Amino acid sequence: MQHPSLYLELDVIEWINTPQPIRLADLRGRVVVLHAFQMLCPGCVTYGIPQAERIARAFPARDVVVLGLHTVFEHHDVMTPAALRAFASEYRLGMPIGIDRPADQGSVPRTMRLMQLRGTPSLVLLDKSGRIRHQHLGQVEDLRIGAEIGTLLAETAKEEATGKDGATDEAPRKGECDGGSCRINA
Amino acid sequence: MQHPSLYLELDVIEWINTPQPIRLADLRGRVVVLHAFQMLCPGCVTYGIPQAERIARAFPARDVVVLGLHTVFEHHDVMTPAALRAFASEYRLGMPIGIDRPADQGSVPRTMRLMQLRGTPSLVLLDKSGRIRHQHLGQVEDLRIGAEIGTLLAETAKEEATGKDGATDEAPRKGECDGGSCRINA
Amino acid sequence: MQHPSLYLELDVIEWINTPQPIRLADLRGRVVVLHAFQMLCPGCVTYGIPQAERIARAFPARDVVVLGLHTVFEHHDVMTPAALRAFASEYRLGMPIGIDRPADQGSVPRTMRLMQLRGTPSLVLLDKSGRIRHQHLGQVEDLRIGAEIGTLLAETAKEEATGKDGATDEAPRKGECDGGSCRINA
Amino acid sequence: MQHPSLYLELDVIEWINTPQPIRLADLRGRVVVLHAFQMLCPGCVTYGIPQAERIARAFPARDVVVLGLHTVFEHHDVMTPAALRAFASEYRLGMPIGIDRPADQGSVPRTMRLMQLRGTPSLVLLDKSGRIRHQHLGQVEDLRIGAEIGTLLAETAKEEATGKDGATDEAPRKGECDGGSCRINA
Repeated sequence: MQHPSLYLELDVIEWINTPQPIRLADLRGRVVVLHAFQMLCPGCVTYGIPQAERIARAFPARDVVVLGLHTVFEHHDVMTPAALRAFASEYRLGMPIGIDRPADQGSVPRTMRLMQLRGTPSLVLLDKSGRIRHQHLGQVEDLRIGAEIGTLLAETAKEEATGKDGATDEAPRKGECDGGSCRINA
Repeated sequence: MQHPSLYLELDVIEWINTPQPIRLADLRGRVVVLHAFQMLCPGCVTYGIPQAERIARAFPARDVVVLGLHTVFEHHDVMTPAALRAFASEYRLGMPIGIDRPADQGSVPRTMRLMQLRGTPSLVLLDKSGRIRHQHLGQVEDLRIGAEIGTLLAETAKEEATGKDGATDEAPRKGECDGGSCRINA
Repeated sequence: MQHPSLYLELDVIEWINTPQPIRLADLRGRVVVLHAFQMLCPGCVTYGIPQAERIARAFPARDVVVLGLHTVFEHHDVMTPAALRAFASEYRLGMPIGIDRPADQGSVPRTMRLMQLRGTPSLVLLDKSGRIRHQHLGQVEDLRIGAEIGTLLAETAKEEATGKDGATDEAPRKGECDGGSCRINA
Repeated sequence: MQHPSLYLELDVIEWINTPQPIRLADLRGRVVVLHAFQMLCPGCVTYGIPQAERIARAFPARDVVVLGLHTVFEHHDVMTPAALRAFASEYRLGMPIGIDRPADQGSVPRTMRLMQLRGTPSLVLLDKSGRIRHQHLGQVEDLRIGAEIGTLLAETAKEEATGKDGATDEAPRKGECDGGSCRINA
């Protein structure tokens, strides 16, 4: 039996930089790099977004797809879709960006909760079969991300998967905004 | 006769990071560094604000005062005072920041127009007598700013001034947002 | 029939930072990253050596071995073994460094010629079977190197190989020392 | 009575990048920035030399003169004049560089001892009258150096000076090569 949570879909209210909504299910066969950020998160602006853009430039789109996900869990009143559009325009972001759907209850939006992300910036790597294989919170070396992508590229897509076997996760770190990244206070 | 325009005051609607409003007239005897920025201007975030913070750290406050000025001339709907407060909090800005007063007509706020700033980030240096002596648009080397501050520090404050003799200004550059800084389309 | 040139050995006159000489043949089962440099090559000092050190830190030594190779092809009189030892000590280099054997004729040392390296810094990646798979001259992104290492790590070592099938090589670039890297004038 | 030590001359055995020897006495009226370095000192290569080059670019030569001084106090056998010439050529250094005269006794060369420099990189600032006014060991912010140069530029050259009144000096720091700079073990 499959673990449904491994084949997540993005639950977004609006897309920027793409003519039509993007479904992870349509990206099978390609490695997907999902960059979860907030426009007012210093670590996202300083190193998260530039790294996501480097990844998009370093690999052909037929092999690796880079997506942004705006996961607002604080300052909801000022990190609105309109503010994000102004931000994306000023920073000339080219990658498709989905706006995570606000939750009915609580400050953490839906996809962020579904993927159990603990803050921003978070980098999520999905394999060619659509399974989440790596999640990183905060700053991660290009060499490490590159190696993870390279290993995923070497795999062949599977029809069925049996578990989140390869998932690695950084140990939770104390503090709320150390080094620029922002964490959920749960 | 004095040139009134040389003894400008800031026309702001609100101050952040200071218990009471700041008047340039009260800062006579000190060199004042005014950093005009917009929270969604990439060049401001990448090099303007960090440089302003370096200046504040490099010189004792009794000699050099560093002030921020939020001069919104675009995306007014999302660069609100509330958004600026969230930005200043997330980026842990410590300098006093004045919010430039919107104009009755046009998109350029009042102090920005009064000082004839052409975009963001702009760095304005005032001497101990309160006269504007240098204005820079865009990225400027620390060595150059340091030398200008050092020269102003070597001066003694004058009771009366006779002209904007020392003003230097970067030549206007084409384009609207080259290299991250944003210019007014006049 | 095997291509002998794919199973190269290092021809060095002296090793630094290792108690005993290193043979590539003894490193089968591990990915080997060989960093060819000259101590007076600006690009080597500025980005080549720091990248090699980052690689050594990013991967466990049981998976990836990083070796330096001092390939002097110019200024032979001052880039002596004694000078290299002083350099390695001052820069606190920790990786094993082999000193490429000077050729009987010509300025290019033996291993450098054997591997057909065209200048410094050069990064050579060997797979678990000891075959050269990638060669880069000059500056290369960490993401790309990381991906190449990740792909090689995903492979299993082979007993026999049939060709240099996976070799990729940067296109030759004009000039002699663009951007700090130094090329052989052949 | 003048303090002779304030009007030092450079005691060098050879000059690079200048058609004829340079005497500080001939540079009266200009601020002189003297960058003392060793070619195998990591901090010199990483931040000292680039800063000296930035200073040379930031100020017109009629106002500020930047000179290099190769003060070898260790590894004398490999940091020879020939090695320095190769280094200066590879790094494309454009500033005049004097080679400090080895002492008859001890490892510290003459000008270095005369100026009481404690290691490399050291930055020495002389005013328009030829007096040493600032000395810095290790990394110093561009803003601070800029301000010191700006203040010295605002002065007028004096015929006579009465003391080393403005000298500031960094507090001695422990260790031998912290952060890349190299100190004399006295």
